[in-house]
Amino acid sequence: MKYRRSERLVDITQYLLEYPHTLISLSFFSRRYQSAKSSISEDLTIIKRTFVERGIGELKTIVGAAGGVLFIPRLEKEVQKKFIDQLASRLSDEARLLPGGYVYLSDLLGESKLLRRVGRLISSKYADQQVDVIMTVATKGVPIAQAVAYFLNIPFVIVRRDSKITEGATVSVNYASGSSHRIEKMELSKRSLPQGSRVLVVDDFMKGGGTVAGMVSLIKEFDSTLVGTIVFAEAHFHGERAVKDYNSLLYVKNVDTKTKTITVVPGSYLQD
Amino acid sequence: MKYRRSERLVDITQYLLEYPHTLISLSFFSRRYQSAKSSISEDLTIIKRTFVERGIGELKTIVGAAGGVLFIPRLEKEVQKKFIDQLASRLSDEARLLPGGYVYLSDLLGESKLLRRVGRLISSKYADQQVDVIMTVATKGVPIAQAVAYFLNIPFVIVRRDSKITEGATVSVNYASGSSHRIEKMELSKRSLPQGSRVLVVDDFMKGGGTVAGMVSLIKEFDSTLVGTIVFAEAHFHGERAVKDYNSLLYVKNVDTKTKTITVVPGSYLQD
Repeated sequence: MKYRRSERLVDITQYLLEYPHTLISLSFFSRRYQSAKSSISEDLTIIKRTFVERGIGELKTIVGAAGGVLFIPRLEKEVQKKFIDQLASRLSDEARLLPGGYVYLSDLLGESKLLRRVGRLISSKYADQQVDVIMTVATKGVPIAQAVAYFLNIPFVIVRRDSKITEGATVSVNYASGSSHRIEKMELSKRSLPQGSRVLVVDDFMKGGGTVAGMVSLIKEFDSTLVGTIVFAEAHFHGERAVKDYNSLLYVKNVDTKTKTITVVPGSYLQD
Repeated sequence: MKYRRSERLVDITQYLLEYPHTLISLSFFSRRYQSAKSSISEDLTIIKRTFVERGIGELKTIVGAAGGVLFIPRLEKEVQKKFIDQLASRLSDEARLLPGGYVYLSDLLGESKLLRRVGRLISSKYADQQVDVIMTVATKGVPIAQAVAYFLNIPFVIVRRDSKITEGATVSVNYASGSSHRIEKMELSKRSLPQGSRVLVVDDFMKGGGTVAGMVSLIKEFDSTLVGTIVFAEAHFHGERAVKDYNSLLYVKNVDTKTKTITVVPGSYLQD
């Protein structure tokens, strides 16, 4: 069955969105629709232009025998800024205030639309770098890791603080929990991360940075390389953090349990 | 700026995929592209036909003043079957065998493409029922919950076995861990689940069913209703399971630690 241009445009679009950061040959589409490569090429030109105009991302053409097209999801700077501002305002809601000056985040990290946007935002920053795997720590970092992993088309691994028989052999490290001054242990299944991987660390919340520092030492134990660290929100912290090189989407500047106010502003993410 | 049909087709397609199970009015698209509603209507007819032909899902038209279109992602029965068969074969790999007869799953639950497919598969079953929220238990159920939540356009909540100060007030229940005969505790943040919610429970692995039974009693504590339970894989279990009404994508029929073989077959999911 032969497909008309209009149908091809719909299906190619959904296919590209389903497989971001994946090289797809023109022959593949040509076979899929029983259409000439020249027609597919024209389809892709239309899609490419629309993706740019609507801020969906970039459609990269790789020429040559092993070539094809590659969809790179991006989020425009302006949209990024607006999104982070909206998040900051949602987080500043006094109803989020928890005893001990903590901020309730779990509802946000269970909203799939928000997570997709966070994933697209973070993946935009690393779209042109080689990242092999996303690493996070259980539990609330997982949704963020999954969202970023989808847009970069790479797997994610979950570091755990509790030992599980379903993980097989693990590699563990001890780390100092910066905010509570305790020595804790975290571990990662040995088979989950190949040696020599380039790793992007994401997490939901950072105070002293001890957890992220733990992940950084785990990455070393796996003879792998840290590409970057992004946290959803960082808290104001008295003293020196255990890690310095990271970016945050949001900065919880001040939490006043007496007046019951939370002040959240954009983090360092957009400042580079 | 006016958009041509070809550009509208590309952008409407990506918009619908980005917002599944969301009613979008024709006026919205009409304003977005400065185009007549009749043109938009024709665009949607093309998209609708292509979505059906390519097995992407259903584009439902709601007529009337508050009407519009609604994209319902579906996965065709044949594709579902093929996908589950492939999963069964991947799980049957002897390299997945862990001490104690457990099966290593973590790599699969960190593959975003696989998770999206699982999400589309499970959401297909519940696309025409009212589900308000997905519930799972930390940690490995989270990626599945997130994937299903996206395709149904609803939030997900994470039940925890460990108490966390960042969750605020919680409701907790005790449950008997069927496979280990211990009494354990699980809890859910009080503000994360509104009373009267219709809840779909998902989890990665079921042995005795104690964990799922715990979630079912939590749902009751929140005066909410269980819509269904889906586990990624269930193990063969000697004795009576703590829950009876559930479906599994995969059934780990036999694990032989002596001959080092794992036999995994499709679960009950497609049998209804």
